[in-house]
Amino acid sequence: MRKKSFASDNNSGIHPSVLDAIIRANEGHCIGYGDDPYTNKAIKAFKKTFGENCDIYFVLNGTGANVLGLKAVTKPFQAIICTDVSHLNMDECGAPESLIGAKLLQVKNTNGKLSIEQLEDFLSFKGNEHHAQPRIVSITQATELGTVYTPDEILKISEFVHKNNMLLHMDGARVSNAAAYLGTTLKEITGDVGVDILSFGGTKNGLMMAEAVVFFDRLLSKEFKYIRKQGLHLVSKMRYVSAQFEPYLNENLWLMNAQKANKMATMLKEKLSTLSFCKIVYPVQSNAVFLTLPHSVAEKLRKEYFFYYWDEKKPIIRLMTSFDTEEKDIEEFVQTLKNLSES
Amino acid sequence: MRKKSFASDNNSGIHPSVLDAIIRANEGHCIGYGDDPYTNKAIKAFKKTFGENCDIYFVLNGTGANVLGLKAVTKPFQAIICTDVSHLNMDECGAPESLIGAKLLQVKNTNGKLSIEQLEDFLSFKGNEHHAQPRIVSITQATELGTVYTPDEILKISEFVHKNNMLLHMDGARVSNAAAYLGTTLKEITGDVGVDILSFGGTKNGLMMAEAVVFFDRLLSKEFKYIRKQGLHLVSKMRYVSAQFEPYLNENLWLMNAQKANKMATMLKEKLSTLSFCKIVYPVQSNAVFLTLPHSVAEKLRKEYFFYYWDEKKPIIRLMTSFDTEEKDIEEFVQTLKNLSES
Amino acid sequence: MRKKSFASDNNSGIHPSVLDAIIRANEGHCIGYGDDPYTNKAIKAFKKTFGENCDIYFVLNGTGANVLGLKAVTKPFQAIICTDVSHLNMDECGAPESLIGAKLLQVKNTNGKLSIEQLEDFLSFKGNEHHAQPRIVSITQATELGTVYTPDEILKISEFVHKNNMLLHMDGARVSNAAAYLGTTLKEITGDVGVDILSFGGTKNGLMMAEAVVFFDRLLSKEFKYIRKQGLHLVSKMRYVSAQFEPYLNENLWLMNAQKANKMATMLKEKLSTLSFCKIVYPVQSNAVFLTLPHSVAEKLRKEYFFYYWDEKKPIIRLMTSFDTEEKDIEEFVQTLKNLSES
Amino acid sequence: MRKKSFASDNNSGIHPSVLDAIIRANEGHCIGYGDDPYTNKAIKAFKKTFGENCDIYFVLNGTGANVLGLKAVTKPFQAIICTDVSHLNMDECGAPESLIGAKLLQVKNTNGKLSIEQLEDFLSFKGNEHHAQPRIVSITQATELGTVYTPDEILKISEFVHKNNMLLHMDGARVSNAAAYLGTTLKEITGDVGVDILSFGGTKNGLMMAEAVVFFDRLLSKEFKYIRKQGLHLVSKMRYVSAQFEPYLNENLWLMNAQKANKMATMLKEKLSTLSFCKIVYPVQSNAVFLTLPHSVAEKLRKEYFFYYWDEKKPIIRLMTSFDTEEKDIEEFVQTLKNLSES
Repeated sequence: MRKKSFASDNNSGIHPSVLDAIIRANEGHCIGYGDDPYTNKAIKAFKKTFGENCDIYFVLNGTGANVLGLKAVTKPFQAIICTDVSHLNMDECGAPESLIGAKLLQVKNTNGKLSIEQLEDFLSFKGNEHHAQPRIVSITQATELGTVYTPDEILKISEFVHKNNMLLHMDGARVSNAAAYLGTTLKEITGDVGVDILSFGGTKNGLMMAEAVVFFDRLLSKEFKYIRKQGLHLVSKMRYVSAQFEPYLNENLWLMNAQKANKMATMLKEKLSTLSFCKIVYPVQSNAVFLTLPHSVAEKLRKEYFFYYWDEKKPIIRLMTSFDTEEKDIEEFVQTLKNLSES
Repeated sequence: MRKKSFASDNNSGIHPSVLDAIIRANEGHCIGYGDDPYTNKAIKAFKKTFGENCDIYFVLNGTGANVLGLKAVTKPFQAIICTDVSHLNMDECGAPESLIGAKLLQVKNTNGKLSIEQLEDFLSFKGNEHHAQPRIVSITQATELGTVYTPDEILKISEFVHKNNMLLHMDGARVSNAAAYLGTTLKEITGDVGVDILSFGGTKNGLMMAEAVVFFDRLLSKEFKYIRKQGLHLVSKMRYVSAQFEPYLNENLWLMNAQKANKMATMLKEKLSTLSFCKIVYPVQSNAVFLTLPHSVAEKLRKEYFFYYWDEKKPIIRLMTSFDTEEKDIEEFVQTLKNLSES
Repeated sequence: MRKKSFASDNNSGIHPSVLDAIIRANEGHCIGYGDDPYTNKAIKAFKKTFGENCDIYFVLNGTGANVLGLKAVTKPFQAIICTDVSHLNMDECGAPESLIGAKLLQVKNTNGKLSIEQLEDFLSFKGNEHHAQPRIVSITQATELGTVYTPDEILKISEFVHKNNMLLHMDGARVSNAAAYLGTTLKEITGDVGVDILSFGGTKNGLMMAEAVVFFDRLLSKEFKYIRKQGLHLVSKMRYVSAQFEPYLNENLWLMNAQKANKMATMLKEKLSTLSFCKIVYPVQSNAVFLTLPHSVAEKLRKEYFFYYWDEKKPIIRLMTSFDTEEKDIEEFVQTLKNLSES
Repeated sequence: MRKKSFASDNNSGIHPSVLDAIIRANEGHCIGYGDDPYTNKAIKAFKKTFGENCDIYFVLNGTGANVLGLKAVTKPFQAIICTDVSHLNMDECGAPESLIGAKLLQVKNTNGKLSIEQLEDFLSFKGNEHHAQPRIVSITQATELGTVYTPDEILKISEFVHKNNMLLHMDGARVSNAAAYLGTTLKEITGDVGVDILSFGGTKNGLMMAEAVVFFDRLLSKEFKYIRKQGLHLVSKMRYVSAQFEPYLNENLWLMNAQKANKMATMLKEKLSTLSFCKIVYPVQSNAVFLTLPHSVAEKLRKEYFFYYWDEKKPIIRLMTSFDTEEKDIEEFVQTLKNLSES
């Protein structure tokens, strides 16, 4: 059996309950494109989770959720404010610019987050046709650096955003890990604190390829069915996507998986902290651990375990835990690392 | 148990062998985004099928395959020639225009097909900056009307296309049904007769959501990995897409499923032909049957069986068979129709 | 001195009064981008012409006016219905598709025009996410074939369009010629009969490079300043564009120039009708004359006078008159043609 | 007569020699879209200036030159590296992102310039499909802060760029001012030092609305005629654009106008330096002077002279001189400022 990877939380497979749901969905014929009982049931589960007034659309990956959700509310002459390290800015191969036509306005992150002071700088762009017009603030929860915005931080941002006639988008690829860390419901860190559009992640937390765009105001979503279709994310056999959300939401799988991954990350951090040559770089608040290592050790480690350099110069490496990471996987990893440092 | 539908070949579920392959893929950790053993194995199966020189990329639906495959070879000032009834022109919500930026030049179909004479009319556009520049001819195999281009017809089109410095794209959402009808290999009606880019369908023939873009010239695909990522079709857990192609290609599932669906369509056509109030509209060469019915019968039928009107005025309705359509499903359908006509 | 051309009404220079206005504008400093007295004065002239409630933006050419005006009111998943011979469809190198992202839905013209019956066919697309959503009907006045819609014809189209929650766009590259033919004001064949967005042409009627987008409902234009800037049509030295409209509108140059060109086209038609080998193809209602000629004569003529083939097979050639075409130019042309036919 | 403005070099009118050239061009008929003697002559003048192998296309403004020139060489999944203060990044309302589909990668400027060290950081993006692919480095000459790259600085950047399979673009809205400052020819700071694509400015230096895209390698421009047409910048009466370049290049107007504006900026800087409450912010190397002022003085000044705040907080204001700025205009401005500071 292959070793468990710490490269990404998408290296794990899918949770057994999710696989079961897929198997159960494979019965008989259904009308395509979402007009089926599995999708209706999943939408009910989402409304129970996020509120009756929200509107939900299933898509196939996180880039799809982010880009299409934002396309619904952003015109080509408008701009999206996000951090320099955001997935939107760094890891979507320019899809936001190319498919929405909009401009990204980046601000330098502090532990993965942006601040209201940084947003204020863009207000002077408003009304001046030479500048792309600030329309969206996009934050990531948990952030790309594994940190978590508190509900109060999000509320303050959303108040600023709305006061200035903008909208708040949340890239929630790991929003379940954030809620697990904070001990809140999903709604308490999204719709309740002013998020307008949420990319709700599933794939990094035990699903196969299933994400959702959640609109907390149905006025914002009224054209989204066309945007999803034109955006290449309408699938005919929708039931296999939507069925996954049944156990995920109704059986609290989102929470159990996230709690497990978070717990493993904390354990990993603690064990790594005992190694004198390792330094943890950011607060560990979800399922990510960023650390610096001597270059020589990092290079040796990469032969044993695939991982991504976050910053190759220093170097900083990123480790992710998953719902199926076990204590012994961590012990094996840390032991390997220790051995390599001594070899 | 729900009645089998004749609305579309995407109303069926997934073939049991495909589900098994997905279940088998759910073991341990894999590097994401396609650098995994399932994907490598699937690519080998494609090369065995289509030739060693082709290049293969997996995507999630047919619109994705068409639009992204064409985007790799079409610039925004260029044009794609296709029929008026092509999926590209009618059923992709303007995605080709919006995501490629290119223009579609439509020609009126004859039984779903286009002719070289029609293509000649566009040659005068070449070199004139006021006109979008013809770059691609796109044909659908089997066509949207259920008919099939012979290998010789395709060869003649590809020779014309290449002589005029253009490329030939095939929307092969149902290319397996065409090969099953013609009794050829898949290669004999694609790369061997000059197709440059193929959208290879799987979803309508028993897969979950799995299609492939096949480039028969690797020069055409050298930037496709960026186009797929930016086009929202790179999935992290790629193994669950690619694993489906293992039984599909290596166990001849593509052929058996297509043969079954085709056979059922022929049976459906024959039984419908015995009903005096039904008229079959197009030659039945794959898994589609188009027929005219009295309006009153059509409306009653729609309460029993969901189907799509192809032309609501006349009306013409489209019936599709699937890999899991059974003789008794057809008998039940035809009997229902007969009863309704008499009621 | 070079011979006058009949190839296009853009082959003439600019009217002396327009040149004078440009010379007068070249005095001292002005704030850029349209906040200058010449632009303010031109806007007043437009409001006097088209009504106080309209909103006016200057652009630099007809393709710019059409594409940017339509971009203001059309989303990428929407569609624009126009004729097969429309400038939008044929002569803008795919700019509508590429820059708006929208789909063009073409209908076959009758003498350059479209009909309400043809529009009805697209109503079934509405609400179906697989189809681009009909949003705009675009008509050209005078049409590309030199014919003219009557005010009543336009009114009937606009009523249909508005009833179905769409908007009416007019490509008015030669709207002055149409008004001159009909004996109406400009307003009577645009805003008064339900046109929502007008591309108001100037360049083909004696201006240098100056067109305007006229919005008859200010709600439609509220974001246009950003669209024009992003669409590359905001010029810093705006005064040189706007100054041209002063004589054009306030001194009735639009009408005098158009009347002159129309009169010359009628004269050209009459003289050509006396030649047995010429056949006039479409009604001459503005400044265009389409005729068929024997191929051999057409080829000889092309060595003496540059012109555009409208249909090279038959052939049909297009002749345009301009504000500066004189009777002797027509006589010389017709005499040349006669001589060539006999040589 | 209105006071001369220091808000922008586009607030001046057009040079009398340029107006004369336009008047001379208004004679008889010409074939449209650039196939005319004025355009041919202008192209010859460009080839004399920039070398026989370059390819030249006229456009109407600087944003058009930048965006369309870059569109010719940049695919939607590629990226353009530029400074944070570049016109491309700040003042084109997101047109590069929207019309090219490409991503801008910004680096923090030092006195308006970027450095090779900053470019190196992006090399790791190459080949990774998650990141937009660095393809272009765009520098502005003279920079948006009025400074000038030396020929050697440009050469070093171009060598780095080409070694890494990228291209060098120069936004030369004020390249004439840079050459005038350096005492070089235009060719010596563009094609001779490795610039691949140049936006050659004219409008800010005495032309009406006339810029050119200069390709130093004809392979790069082979599709540009389609890109310009689709990009809304092909004008029918091209002669009125191209005629302006005749005196500009053949009579050395580009140099005389730039020398005059530069000289006036130096004079302005010197006189402002005598005022204790003014501080010059950047080296004055072309026709821009940036200075800080007390807020109260700046606000009073703005009632007398319109100007643009560069940074409203500090504040920094930007003053531009033009080809028609006179010594007395500067004296009047400085005297006004002095009076205001004492009032």
